[in-house]
Amino acid sequence: MKVGEINTPALLVDSKTLAKNIACMTKARPGASLRPHVKAFKSSVLAKELVSAGHENFCCATIREIEGMVAAGLDHDLLLANQVVNTTRLGALMDKKSTRITVAVDSEETIQSAKSGGISEVLIDVDVGMPRCGCHPNEAGELAKKARDAGLNVRGVMGYEGHLMHEQDHQKHENGITRSMAKLEAAHADVGGEIISGGGTGTWESNTLVTELQAGSYVLMDTEYARLDLPFEQGLFLLTTVISVSGRGHAVLDGGLKAVAMDSGPPSLVGQGEVMYCADEHTGVTGGSWKVGERVLLRPAHIDPTIAKHETLHVVEEVADINDGSVLDSWPIDLRGW
Amino acid sequence: MKVGEINTPALLVDSKTLAKNIACMTKARPGASLRPHVKAFKSSVLAKELVSAGHENFCCATIREIEGMVAAGLDHDLLLANQVVNTTRLGALMDKKSTRITVAVDSEETIQSAKSGGISEVLIDVDVGMPRCGCHPNEAGELAKKARDAGLNVRGVMGYEGHLMHEQDHQKHENGITRSMAKLEAAHADVGGEIISGGGTGTWESNTLVTELQAGSYVLMDTEYARLDLPFEQGLFLLTTVISVSGRGHAVLDGGLKAVAMDSGPPSLVGQGEVMYCADEHTGVTGGSWKVGERVLLRPAHIDPTIAKHETLHVVEEVADINDGSVLDSWPIDLRGW
Repeated sequence: MKVGEINTPALLVDSKTLAKNIACMTKARPGASLRPHVKAFKSSVLAKELVSAGHENFCCATIREIEGMVAAGLDHDLLLANQVVNTTRLGALMDKKSTRITVAVDSEETIQSAKSGGISEVLIDVDVGMPRCGCHPNEAGELAKKARDAGLNVRGVMGYEGHLMHEQDHQKHENGITRSMAKLEAAHADVGGEIISGGGTGTWESNTLVTELQAGSYVLMDTEYARLDLPFEQGLFLLTTVISVSGRGHAVLDGGLKAVAMDSGPPSLVGQGEVMYCADEHTGVTGGSWKVGERVLLRPAHIDPTIAKHETLHVVEEVADINDGSVLDSWPIDLRGW
Repeated sequence: MKVGEINTPALLVDSKTLAKNIACMTKARPGASLRPHVKAFKSSVLAKELVSAGHENFCCATIREIEGMVAAGLDHDLLLANQVVNTTRLGALMDKKSTRITVAVDSEETIQSAKSGGISEVLIDVDVGMPRCGCHPNEAGELAKKARDAGLNVRGVMGYEGHLMHEQDHQKHENGITRSMAKLEAAHADVGGEIISGGGTGTWESNTLVTELQAGSYVLMDTEYARLDLPFEQGLFLLTTVISVSGRGHAVLDGGLKAVAMDSGPPSLVGQGEVMYCADEHTGVTGGSWKVGERVLLRPAHIDPTIAKHETLHVVEEVADINDGSVLDSWPIDLRGW
């Protein structure tokens, strides 16, 4: 299939950029020192590209992601890096002896949930500064004891410094990571275990404490991460078609906010002109010259929720070749939903 | 099934509110004077509730919506209220003699597209003030002539005053509608045909020109529309579970911006407290008291893109009965995608 034959709106993955991003991260964090986060791309087929690069352990944010990874045979070592109150569905996946699922816990309730659902391995989730999940660092040791008393294998700690992922001030970024990771290191000293899990695309180089980095966005990037000085390049695009050209100077594309996430701002236009607005199924563009039927690319501001809106990632040889370029493969986005 | 057994995050529809909203609109706009817009709710089962209320003609925004409505047997009179550059998929639906599909056109290209794809009926889409699709009102007559010369049946005009949907100043709202509809009326005089299609939930009462109102959001509403003085009530909620409670005073819900649209702002919390932030799979709340495992409801700011993120609408007897309430039905959101 040619790119020009794809129904729009549709997501395109630039195969060369994807390969370069994967290689760059694998060089710095080979094998198990990277635990790629599938929440960013929600495709078990893309995850298999990471297995080919040497990464067998994965990080998930939802039960559906875990279920999909197990169904795809990628069940070597899956971490649900999130709290789960009902682990019945996870427990049902533990039939095969080779399936390994670890969940994050930060309370007595989530320890009991892991236990009662049939999950036997946990990480203690530690609050390292972002106001989300995680116990107070001082409480991590006590929670680990409770988990072990409940018969669970405590593999170590997890702490996500998400509040620093997009910090552009270098000194604030570095100091923040130092402070956050000091908390995680102290908690780890109390908890024990071989794993210190954390970090992400935005702290990939500065976070030297974690034994495994939970990065996902680096594989395809977005305009939000592109503001940082990272070696990874943007490889995800929304392909749209111009459906209307107005005498008032604007044109309308057939992909809108149902096709591209708006939480981190509107998408950016590739080529001349700029985005005026995104409506449900339309994006208005201005400052350029377009013809009805022409194809136009947008760069998403935030890839995770953008990918979650789609069924398919179309992998192309060269994203700039918007009409006659070859579609190398079409990967299902099989891990979305809950 | 009880509401308490639903996996979260999940969308709940309050059945009584839905019934009230439908009845209220049907009273004002019975039968064919309403062409409900399925883009708002993307469920052919919900559309059947509107058929039961007397509305057989529907409005769609995407080819996928048209395909789904035809598959569900709701093909009496479908309007694709959008420009389509490639109508091959629509033409493939025209096998049955009873299937009626009309598309909006605003250019020679879209007229040719309708013709070449096998669509025989069109509306001339007119720009009535919002910078989106639609020809200049003065050009509508000429386009209608071109469409008729191409052998198409021109059923009338369409003009969407979307820029006025959320205008809260009553006088600006009324004056704007008067100006917009004067343009549409003039275009209709040049075009002819029995249909003047337009309007929406926000202009449901003030737009007295249109022969058919294209409203959809009124069936379930959202916090954005709730700011207006409308008789319709909010009937859609995101059901979430508290997965973590922090000593810092916040709690974390298991639904985030992948489960609720952020283009019109974050969702609102039902009950005590307020939303701090939405992350990919989490919503942070503060100013209240929560326990791990407790269920919490959020009201979406914008229903259309929120529903498009989900697979199912769970219809409940009483949304306030968050644990023991009965799930009356679970409707697939079968019209999403493109």
